[in-house]
Amino acid sequence: MSKTNNKLSIIPLGGVGEIGKNMTAYVFGNDIIVVDTGLKFPEEEMLGIDIVIPDITYLIENKNKIRGVFLTHGHEDHIGGLPYFLKHINVPVYATRLTLGLVEGKLREHNLLDVTKLITITPRVGIKAGVFTVTPFLNNHSIPDTVGFAIDTPEGIIVHTGDFKFDFTPVDGQHADMYMLAALGEKGVLAMLSDSTNAERPGFTMSERVVGQTIDDAFRQAERRIILATFASNLHRIQQVFESAEKFGRKVAVVGRSMVNNINVAMELGYLHVVKGTLIDADDINKLPADKVVILSTGSQGEAMSALTRMARATHRKVEIMPGDTVIIASSPIPGNEKYVSRTIDQLFKIGAKVIYQSVSGVHVSGHASQEELKLMLSLVRPKYFVPVHGEYRMLKKHIELAVGTGVDPDNCFIVEIGDQIELQNGKARIGSKVPSGTVLIDGLGVGDVGNIVLRDRKLLSQDGILVVVVTLSKQDGTILSGPDIISRGFVYVRESEQLLEEANKIVTGTLQRMVSENVSEWSSLKTGVREALSRFLYEQTRRRPMILPIIMEV
Amino acid sequence: MSKTNNKLSIIPLGGVGEIGKNMTAYVFGNDIIVVDTGLKFPEEEMLGIDIVIPDITYLIENKNKIRGVFLTHGHEDHIGGLPYFLKHINVPVYATRLTLGLVEGKLREHNLLDVTKLITITPRVGIKAGVFTVTPFLNNHSIPDTVGFAIDTPEGIIVHTGDFKFDFTPVDGQHADMYMLAALGEKGVLAMLSDSTNAERPGFTMSERVVGQTIDDAFRQAERRIILATFASNLHRIQQVFESAEKFGRKVAVVGRSMVNNINVAMELGYLHVVKGTLIDADDINKLPADKVVILSTGSQGEAMSALTRMARATHRKVEIMPGDTVIIASSPIPGNEKYVSRTIDQLFKIGAKVIYQSVSGVHVSGHASQEELKLMLSLVRPKYFVPVHGEYRMLKKHIELAVGTGVDPDNCFIVEIGDQIELQNGKARIGSKVPSGTVLIDGLGVGDVGNIVLRDRKLLSQDGILVVVVTLSKQDGTILSGPDIISRGFVYVRESEQLLEEANKIVTGTLQRMVSENVSEWSSLKTGVREALSRFLYEQTRRRPMILPIIMEV
Repeated sequence: MSKTNNKLSIIPLGGVGEIGKNMTAYVFGNDIIVVDTGLKFPEEEMLGIDIVIPDITYLIENKNKIRGVFLTHGHEDHIGGLPYFLKHINVPVYATRLTLGLVEGKLREHNLLDVTKLITITPRVGIKAGVFTVTPFLNNHSIPDTVGFAIDTPEGIIVHTGDFKFDFTPVDGQHADMYMLAALGEKGVLAMLSDSTNAERPGFTMSERVVGQTIDDAFRQAERRIILATFASNLHRIQQVFESAEKFGRKVAVVGRSMVNNINVAMELGYLHVVKGTLIDADDINKLPADKVVILSTGSQGEAMSALTRMARATHRKVEIMPGDTVIIASSPIPGNEKYVSRTIDQLFKIGAKVIYQSVSGVHVSGHASQEELKLMLSLVRPKYFVPVHGEYRMLKKHIELAVGTGVDPDNCFIVEIGDQIELQNGKARIGSKVPSGTVLIDGLGVGDVGNIVLRDRKLLSQDGILVVVVTLSKQDGTILSGPDIISRGFVYVRESEQLLEEANKIVTGTLQRMVSENVSEWSSLKTGVREALSRFLYEQTRRRPMILPIIMEV
Repeated sequence: MSKTNNKLSIIPLGGVGEIGKNMTAYVFGNDIIVVDTGLKFPEEEMLGIDIVIPDITYLIENKNKIRGVFLTHGHEDHIGGLPYFLKHINVPVYATRLTLGLVEGKLREHNLLDVTKLITITPRVGIKAGVFTVTPFLNNHSIPDTVGFAIDTPEGIIVHTGDFKFDFTPVDGQHADMYMLAALGEKGVLAMLSDSTNAERPGFTMSERVVGQTIDDAFRQAERRIILATFASNLHRIQQVFESAEKFGRKVAVVGRSMVNNINVAMELGYLHVVKGTLIDADDINKLPADKVVILSTGSQGEAMSALTRMARATHRKVEIMPGDTVIIASSPIPGNEKYVSRTIDQLFKIGAKVIYQSVSGVHVSGHASQEELKLMLSLVRPKYFVPVHGEYRMLKKHIELAVGTGVDPDNCFIVEIGDQIELQNGKARIGSKVPSGTVLIDGLGVGDVGNIVLRDRKLLSQDGILVVVVTLSKQDGTILSGPDIISRGFVYVRESEQLLEEANKIVTGTLQRMVSENVSEWSSLKTGVREALSRFLYEQTRRRPMILPIIMEV
């Protein structure tokens, strides 16, 4: 392999300039590996969209070169796009045991489990994939079995941190592998791509243990039932809930589909240790005294259909919250969810529950490194080149400031966009041309069939609704045979606006008659005429601009 | 006036269990006064709605009893509903000078200025209004000339705090009137309604002066132009910007309609003191060296059409932000606006601006009292009954906890809902029956013509769009004369889904032919048949549920 002909290209296909849908390709000659295949939840403007994934056109075009997908951990923003990826590109998937456990359920749903090769990886044990050797190193994060990758390439070693924090008192006793990071640093690291989620946050992220203490305190004070909601994937926190329950003599029932699934997978694989008899069936909640029960639930983000939200609205099938119950919301609202969480809290207070939520410190800690930890990572690894990833622009920028502070040459730091190629050759780095890349919207079964025009129409429809105007004209002389009928949806109450719609009807009739008498006969002109006249009239009368859909039939 | 027959009713018509649209009626016998007539911005689910105001049916039914509207200050959540109120109920409006100055512009826009009696009130000077005597007291808040009211009623004195904080170093030298509050407390206060916005926030809200220091520091370090965005109504902060500009030898240009309006009103009325020559026309910005200019702008919430947002997108007509310019966003994002503000910050960073925003402490302080100030208010006024207002449920609840801590009897604290009557008679309080009340949505010129069905339709349309199916049948034998034509909006790209729509067409044709052959001829059955068959087919194919609008014409 000649170093002079080939170069290493690192291509982020998602996760830069944004939070979510993390995916990075490492390309050298005829070999490509992909790290993470994440999804992202839609922005507010993406009306009706379920999830968002990276555009993988580039990878599909080069699918024969791809040696495997390497997953850092089991969160949706790192594994959620995997089924869509595997439908196009069937390659082995490498991940730690728990991550594979979570991936399996996902692939089963998409009928991909039998056709996919899943390979368990172990920290510190290198995997050959084409010219690359990928060695996982253990990280701390808000889900167990999280790793980063040291990727040995013909150009040098690249450290891909993945999501991380440094938790010196980890709940599962698994420490981040500082020795391996330091050893890599000592050996020499060509470039590092590092998690920027909390780059704006000063200090050091608190240990997950802190949450355990808060849970303990809440359990000590609770006199009736305890309902605790958190992220279904935060198995450390879930472990601590079980431990508190055991300590205070309570049984644990689990509600919410993802919580049930994750706990099953984690117990099966040994990532969650539960004393026999502690876990009870959700149907048995009411058989026990109130002070002997903990209900572990989804819904910490106030999601409309989640278990906690339904309990707060008193529409949950199995759990009715009673005055005096303690509800612990052990998470922070993800930006955009604040209002939903607040609404849930208000409803719970109204029922008479005692609610412990984010205003209480220690009820949640982040899974991502704050500034001091980012500097610790930089100081251990001491990379020559530095690329902040997993963050919006201002976070990436802040992370570079931190890197420069630890000694990285400012000229060796790159803020990149999705699709940019970071080219490394003979120890030099440059930003090359962009590969095909972008965002694919998924709505129901449709992958990529909703684009800007459809979204623009949904936006218009959502603002002022639609008016459909139907009229049948005679083929012979253009006289109106039937209609105009005006049907409105999402515009005004028909009953309260009869007069408005009657006048609108007259406007349409008048416009059509005038145009026909002027010998206008092309449908498109007639439609435009009707649309413009009606739109003007409605705007004058209501200051609204509903979508107007004229339908002219000829018989 | 016999105390035994009549009672005092205090009726919050908005602002309890929510943030915004503050409005409270005080009713005694044949006399009613209204405090504040606020608006609220729509929740996310209220698609297409512009603003939300309280339902004033109760007041309209009793309009002859209403002796006046008293306004606490000039923020939209206290005065924004006034034009809609005055269109139904023409009564005198009492407010301080600045508040009236801001009200005037609003009434002029609605052609109400000439027909409305506006009366200036002065702190400590009582106003007779029926049986009530209303005495304003000076508050600190994020807009000058803010007052609360001591309302003398036949049942006793009620303190209505309005929005407040305690700023011991106020920018305009106007201190909150602690003497009057203490004197009221000493005399005996029957009940207090107090601002709960920050009831969850521990400690004492910082003085507005702190922001002045941060602005000064930023001005000292800025090498090129300074663009500062804040709330257009925060005249204290705007005053401090002018003072910093004068200190550092910069001229100030103002952009953004509301900023220009408010500054004009405030300068005219003497609430903003500007050294001659400091204010320049926005057209002259480019005539001065970059280090001699400050641009004061709207857009601190990332609002789509605001001046700062357009600058960040490089689409502002007059101001182009250059690398090296300093942008100060002197506000906190209102819940729900975080994403818009973040997007603006990212765009500004990309242009190369230095951006100072909320992560820097001291760039914004709240206008509302934190817990220690709420307790200070309670300790000064020492009310017998306590009603927390201006807050969501959990804030009201927290505020009661604080009140009980200062010595209010827990049985004398009431959490009320919109429309509840707090009835006070012979020194006793109880919650009476509800009056007609609720929420009115305003969309364009329509007040209250958009309700649940319209919103539900807008929601449906926004998720999966609409399919209109048009077909003309023969009156004689039900054969299809024309169509079915399927028109879709917001569903899928037609070009990419031709096959799907062709199949849909066949489904409709088949369904109609089958039904006609079975002698089904009522339109409603035909429509339901088409809708159901098509809906089932589309859900199977796409997992989406667009609205389906079958239109059957007979000729």
